[in-house]
Amino acid sequence: MATPGQVITCKAAVAWEPNKPLVIEDVQVAPPQVGEVRIKILFTALCHTDAYTWSGKDPEGLFPCILGHEAAGVVESIGEGVTEVQPGDHVIPCYQAECRECKFCKSGKTNLCGKVRSATGVGVMLSDRKSRFSINGKPIYHFMGTSTFSQYTVVHDVSVAKIDPKAPLEKVCLLGCGVPTGLGAVWNTAKVESGSIVAIFGLGTVGLAVAEGAKTAGASRIIGIDIDSKKFDTAKKFGVTEFVNPKDHEKPIQQVIVDLTDGGVDYSFECIGNVSVMRAALECCHKGWGTSVIVGVAASGQEISTRPFQLVTGRVWKGTAFGGFKSRSQVPWLVEKYLKKEIKVDEYITHNLTLGEINEAFHLMHEGGCLRCVLKVHE
Amino acid sequence: MATPGQVITCKAAVAWEPNKPLVIEDVQVAPPQVGEVRIKILFTALCHTDAYTWSGKDPEGLFPCILGHEAAGVVESIGEGVTEVQPGDHVIPCYQAECRECKFCKSGKTNLCGKVRSATGVGVMLSDRKSRFSINGKPIYHFMGTSTFSQYTVVHDVSVAKIDPKAPLEKVCLLGCGVPTGLGAVWNTAKVESGSIVAIFGLGTVGLAVAEGAKTAGASRIIGIDIDSKKFDTAKKFGVTEFVNPKDHEKPIQQVIVDLTDGGVDYSFECIGNVSVMRAALECCHKGWGTSVIVGVAASGQEISTRPFQLVTGRVWKGTAFGGFKSRSQVPWLVEKYLKKEIKVDEYITHNLTLGEINEAFHLMHEGGCLRCVLKVHE
Ligand SMILES: NC(=O)c1ccc[n+]([C@@H]2O[C@H](COP(=O)([O-])OP(=O)(O)OC[C@H]3O[C@@H](n4cnc5c(N)ncnc54)[C@H](O)[C@@H]3O)[C@@H](O)[C@H]2O)c1
Ligand SMILES: NC(=O)c1ccc[n+]([C@@H]2O[C@H](COP(=O)([O-])OP(=O)(O)OC[C@H]3O[C@@H](n4cnc5c(N)ncnc54)[C@H](O)[C@@H]3O)[C@@H](O)[C@H]2O)c1
Ligand SMILES: [Zn+2]
Ligand SMILES: [Zn+2]
Ligand SMILES: [Zn+2]
Ligand SMILES: [Zn+2]
Repeated sequence: MATPGQVITCKAAVAWEPNKPLVIEDVQVAPPQVGEVRIKILFTALCHTDAYTWSGKDPEGLFPCILGHEAAGVVESIGEGVTEVQPGDHVIPCYQAECRECKFCKSGKTNLCGKVRSATGVGVMLSDRKSRFSINGKPIYHFMGTSTFSQYTVVHDVSVAKIDPKAPLEKVCLLGCGVPTGLGAVWNTAKVESGSIVAIFGLGTVGLAVAEGAKTAGASRIIGIDIDSKKFDTAKKFGVTEFVNPKDHEKPIQQVIVDLTDGGVDYSFECIGNVSVMRAALECCHKGWGTSVIVGVAASGQEISTRPFQLVTGRVWKGTAFGGFKSRSQVPWLVEKYLKKEIKVDEYITHNLTLGEINEAFHLMHEGGCLRCVLKVHE
Repeated sequence: MATPGQVITCKAAVAWEPNKPLVIEDVQVAPPQVGEVRIKILFTALCHTDAYTWSGKDPEGLFPCILGHEAAGVVESIGEGVTEVQPGDHVIPCYQAECRECKFCKSGKTNLCGKVRSATGVGVMLSDRKSRFSINGKPIYHFMGTSTFSQYTVVHDVSVAKIDPKAPLEKVCLLGCGVPTGLGAVWNTAKVESGSIVAIFGLGTVGLAVAEGAKTAGASRIIGIDIDSKKFDTAKKFGVTEFVNPKDHEKPIQQVIVDLTDGGVDYSFECIGNVSVMRAALECCHKGWGTSVIVGVAASGQEISTRPFQLVTGRVWKGTAFGGFKSRSQVPWLVEKYLKKEIKVDEYITHNLTLGEINEAFHLMHEGGCLRCVLKVHE
């Protein structure tokens, strides 16, 4: 059955309401319109932003919606004007677009493309500001411009990274979010130099990817900090050389790290989303040059603070989104690096389930032993 | 009368207690010890850090002390082991030392030398952790390693910048603090590029020096923000192209600036010392790349805050001390630039008084019309 130009009815995990189990539904996915691409999603992982919006704590969350943003698939059909991908291309949908034309893309200073944001921010497509998902005529919102918890999804063409068809989609789906975020935080945002001392707060997927990035950048010491000491064994494999559990110390963690490093680290990364840890990560940096990068996403409304003296005496506070990677240009490059065994991906996958088991997968995220759970989307 | 090796009795303005008028006293200035230089101070200006410590709000302030850190003079004598200056050399004492040997100096990443800090931070000299100032045997603390409100002072050799004797000391004394701070915030800390849009919060000496730095860096728009609209006329001469008075707007000032600049400025500088303005300065930066530099010094205990999302979406928060200039290497270079008329100095001097009129000079600092008041130290 030829699907291009047709509405496709397929399975998707729908979040009808905040904090209620997702429901696998038959969803109608409209054909891609101008500048859009319909993708058959083969594998999707779960990431914390999905859980955050699902929880209802995200004030910009819209329901009902189809979550998911760390995935890989094959182009099923393309809308008018789409030139860079063809049906059959292997792709990773990217929540950071890259149009190469907007003020942001042209600046050469950021990966935050502005082209489709006004639409993806409110769960619709740019051309007609409508959703391509519906159930019996009732529209279902898109999420982050990706909505990968569905067998088929429609995304803007500026959000599609075409990758080497030799790459195993059940692995490289992870290159849609967490792993590039960690690597890029080191390589693009902090630009860690060889010999640097690095502290990583939080040793989940993102923190481990920071560790790997720091190791390849030649960091001399990579200090991993986590409240779960079980994380250390895995973390060693990713390059962490020392482990600190804040619970083992009476002193504030920033003081512990400063003492361990004769004045502080050269670079620190917050990979948790906790505003007090963000402060500690800044304050454990070395006077004069220490740079702290916020990678974790804090809950809405929360604020970071510190004494301005911390900055006046030379520390730098930054943040990163998708590790500063330009999605369409650089995700394919990351896939190549994976194929050449220059970056890990398989090692982050601790669980494999199916789309039908997605609620179990959300539960797993809160367990210490889970890094990434990959869902097979088609049975 | 030969003074080298002798105790010199001279006039100095002594701060006996916080917030009480300074008293001109006969002070005994001991000869320089190993690694020290005794300087005949000819001209000194006042800066806000003097007023801050004098006010008693600085928890690290020690009394009685001799304040002052923006000055110029002539070397009177040198202690053992001092090689880089000789009696008769024209010099600017610098509160940021530069030893060229410590971890900080060698890092190539900062101007914050660590060599004498443990002593200057507590008002004494490094070699014997004692003061060189006394009145009838009672020691008077040093301040910032400079104490320029005295006809003679003793400083560490790593804190002395030797300058071109052709430079008028009554002018270049300003190159001891405020002017380099503003210029360096732009050139060294922010590294403003040609075509950039710049916002400057606070148009005192430091803010005006930022404006001049931004102008020479080729900024396309230089937006000056001050609650005193009278500042605009002077500011234009320093390069400010647009003026905004927050009092003329109902909207938060960051929103005013974002609206004026189609999304925010490339670089902002806080030159006041107000933590809420520091936040505004960060938040008026353009998403993706805007960098905010804290130059103003906030009162002890105050904190800056913002939503971490500001950083995750690409803004960078920094600070600067003495504009990132390495004092002994670069202050002489700034003096040369002044002599070649490449930077302004004279234009910041709005008042000239004598050391005996120092309390009047402190009052003047709180008047809108005063940028820098230079005191003649010897009658
Ligand atoms: N900036 C971006 O573009 C971007 C992209 C992806 C993910 N993220 C964010 O990165 C963060 C990390 O993601 P992840 O998938 O690695 O999460 P994760 O939950 O797997 O890892 C977090 C780790 O932090 C540890 N932790 C929790 N509280 C701690 C504390 N107080 N001190 C020390 N350790 C603590 C946990 O034990 C866990 O190991 C999340 O906030 C996520 O939303 C940001
Ligand atoms: N980081 C460093 O190394 C360094 C060095 C020297 C000075 N400083 C600091 O820089 C700051 C500025 O010094 P200065 O000599 O230019 O001071 P100044 O008092 O001459 O100038 C401050 C200006 O800010 C304006 N202002 C005050 N509140 C404002 C507000 N809420 N919004 C907008 N404008 C406001 C005032 O009208 C004034 O024009 C001080 O805090 C000083 O301590 C820092
Ligand atoms: Zn994610
Ligand atoms: Zn773009
Ligand atoms: Zn000063
Ligand atoms: Zn030094």
